[in-house]
Amino acid sequence: MDRASTLTASLPHWLQGRPLPDALPTDEERMALVHELADLNWRAGNGGPFAALVVDTASGELIAAGVNVVLASGLSSAHAEVVALSLAQTTLGTWDLATDRELELVVNWRPCAMCYGATIWSGVRRLVIAGSGPECEELTGFDEGPMRDDWRQQLEARGISVTTDVLREAALRTFAAYGASTSTVYNARRD
Amino acid sequence: MDRASTLTASLPHWLQGRPLPDALPTDEERMALVHELADLNWRAGNGGPFAALVVDTASGELIAAGVNVVLASGLSSAHAEVVALSLAQTTLGTWDLATDRELELVVNWRPCAMCYGATIWSGVRRLVIAGSGPECEELTGFDEGPMRDDWRQQLEARGISVTTDVLREAALRTFAAYGASTSTVYNARRD
Repeated sequence: MDRASTLTASLPHWLQGRPLPDALPTDEERMALVHELADLNWRAGNGGPFAALVVDTASGELIAAGVNVVLASGLSSAHAEVVALSLAQTTLGTWDLATDRELELVVNWRPCAMCYGATIWSGVRRLVIAGSGPECEELTGFDEGPMRDDWRQQLEARGISVTTDVLREAALRTFAAYGASTSTVYNARRD
Repeated sequence: MDRASTLTASLPHWLQGRPLPDALPTDEERMALVHELADLNWRAGNGGPFAALVVDTASGELIAAGVNVVLASGLSSAHAEVVALSLAQTTLGTWDLATDRELELVVNWRPCAMCYGATIWSGVRRLVIAGSGPECEELTGFDEGPMRDDWRQQLEARGISVTTDVLREAALRTFAAYGASTSTVYNARRD
């Protein structure tokens, strides 16, 4: 067997060719772009209905935009958060986003168990989410994994503030549309 | 700013050029290779003292070998487990390792919070570790992140069995050697 020695994941062509704003001043503008990309993403068949941005909290500069490309890349770890954080690190040339300015991760629901850890290791200082709770799992069928009840306090203890309920209803509309489709739910085990 | 649109991580050259066995019949043989690669890895400066294999549980066929390349790749998510799982998925051409045979992840300590989730999403059916507990954090200085107390039961509820304490003392020797060095501990925030 020829074993692979490189892993790679790319943004879908529709997103690579899409003009994105240089800056998104408000939380609502940031989340509106997340929702737009999340909805386009599952309809294009790249992966689940999830998108994430890395943004400079103060200036609103858009550093990276990611979407879930589990299906397109063939990698189960290629969730929107991991993609956005990795692209930001690639662009900035460092594994540590806790640089001289505060960067944040904006995503359309509370990260899953894996992306929760990825957020902590990335160096972002703020997590902005459209919501948390069982609605995402209920509407989409995705398993979000075993999370601690004190997930938010654990982030804050590590210097990551959490802002929630930004354009929450729009997130639920995307999940509901996805759930009503015949898209692949890529929980391992295909159960 | 030119934003990156592709993320990539590669095995270090010393590992790409290293002949690896086609099969590792026993847990001890699997873990011995993990320990060897983990020790070589931090000494080469690629990342932390961690390595992981994806192996066919029944036959021992070696599907993928990964090491931590956070420093070499510039990606905070490039832990050994994510690298090994992603390389296995690349080689096999699927995001779901729960195929017609049972595959397992072999790693030299209980996965961190991120890799714990990555293990669940990968489709592996068994997790083989050298140990768990505070010794890794104490010896290396790495934060392993917020884990649930019932982490093992949560895996088993998702069809992933756990085998622990395989060549445990050798893992601690690697961590102790790393901890006594001046290597970079890449917890975010450089704290």
